[in-house]
Amino acid sequence: MEGVYMLKRSQVRDAQERAAQILKHLGIALTSQERENVEVAEFGLGELEKTGLELVTYINNKRYCAKELVLFPRQTCPEHRHPPVDGDPGKQETFRCRWGKVYLYTQGKPKEKNEIKARVPKGSEAYYTVFHEIEMNPGDQFTIPSNTLHWFQAGDEGAVVSEFSSASRDEADVFTDTRIERIPKVIED
Amino acid sequence: MEGVYMLKRSQVRDAQERAAQILKHLGIALTSQERENVEVAEFGLGELEKTGLELVTYINNKRYCAKELVLFPRQTCPEHRHPPVDGDPGKQETFRCRWGKVYLYTQGKPKEKNEIKARVPKGSEAYYTVFHEIEMNPGDQFTIPSNTLHWFQAGDEGAVVSEFSSASRDEADVFTDTRIERIPKVIED
Repeated sequence: MEGVYMLKRSQVRDAQERAAQILKHLGIALTSQERENVEVAEFGLGELEKTGLELVTYINNKRYCAKELVLFPRQTCPEHRHPPVDGDPGKQETFRCRWGKVYLYTQGKPKEKNEIKARVPKGSEAYYTVFHEIEMNPGDQFTIPSNTLHWFQAGDEGAVVSEFSSASRDEADVFTDTRIERIPKVIED
Repeated sequence: MEGVYMLKRSQVRDAQERAAQILKHLGIALTSQERENVEVAEFGLGELEKTGLELVTYINNKRYCAKELVLFPRQTCPEHRHPPVDGDPGKQETFRCRWGKVYLYTQGKPKEKNEIKARVPKGSEAYYTVFHEIEMNPGDQFTIPSNTLHWFQAGDEGAVVSEFSSASRDEADVFTDTRIERIPKVIED
């Protein structure tokens, strides 16, 4: 498996625990099963603290989906889009900032790269191409149309974002960075 | 307008303020516009404290909808269903209890009427017909299929419930109690 980064089970557990603590601190109740099943999206780059995302999926069915997204300080969900799949026009999603600060970037009038508030992960600059900046604070909300490139990064304290959307098919996501694996490989340690 | 209960603007404002305070207390951030636009569903029976519901709609589009529901102590959302409309199979909704306690009733194996934990609003007994009981505490979740009768009541402290669903068309809701007006008439005072 040379060349493929293997996330360790202990890293997954640590990130799950951190994410669950953040939600608990905010008074967002999870069941014990949800706490154990927090999804750690590591994206296969071997830099979870920089490029990664923690998720709790409350519900995902053919019609709608709702998730809670947790970002550690300056953690980045890398650039991607949700393409049409099997007659579905592609996932449309509404982000609502609950806590912390989020810098969201989509297609649209771009800011100069050296003027954006997020920090593009070092070594991955080639894979960040959209720079229309939306700064989100608690209570702020933004809807991303289907098949539209976007990426986002938490501010210095981290962030919690509620995501309301049409059906989620994570395995169909198209990342600008072709090195990325949306579903991480985990090795027991 | 004899026979039609007119909700007073001052009652609407009071209920909006109470609901916004509950959400604020829970750390759920609203914009000032959202606070001003809290929906007070009074259902036209002239007993908002007993039969009513306060709502914040975060997003409602053709594909999905997300709302925060606030219930005052023992406040009841009366029995209704979401029928198919214009080729849509009818609203399917997932309730997630965030705070307080909710007694939810749907079609299914019923409890004896005199054994349920909610109190059917006096004078409206004829309009409550489903008694399959689901008790929801923070972190608990339940999905109601489209076109399925349901009603719910908060416990003694009130409740906050997140609702994730397919598109919402409140005006199409079918209430068992034919006296009910889903969209209240408000008189300025």
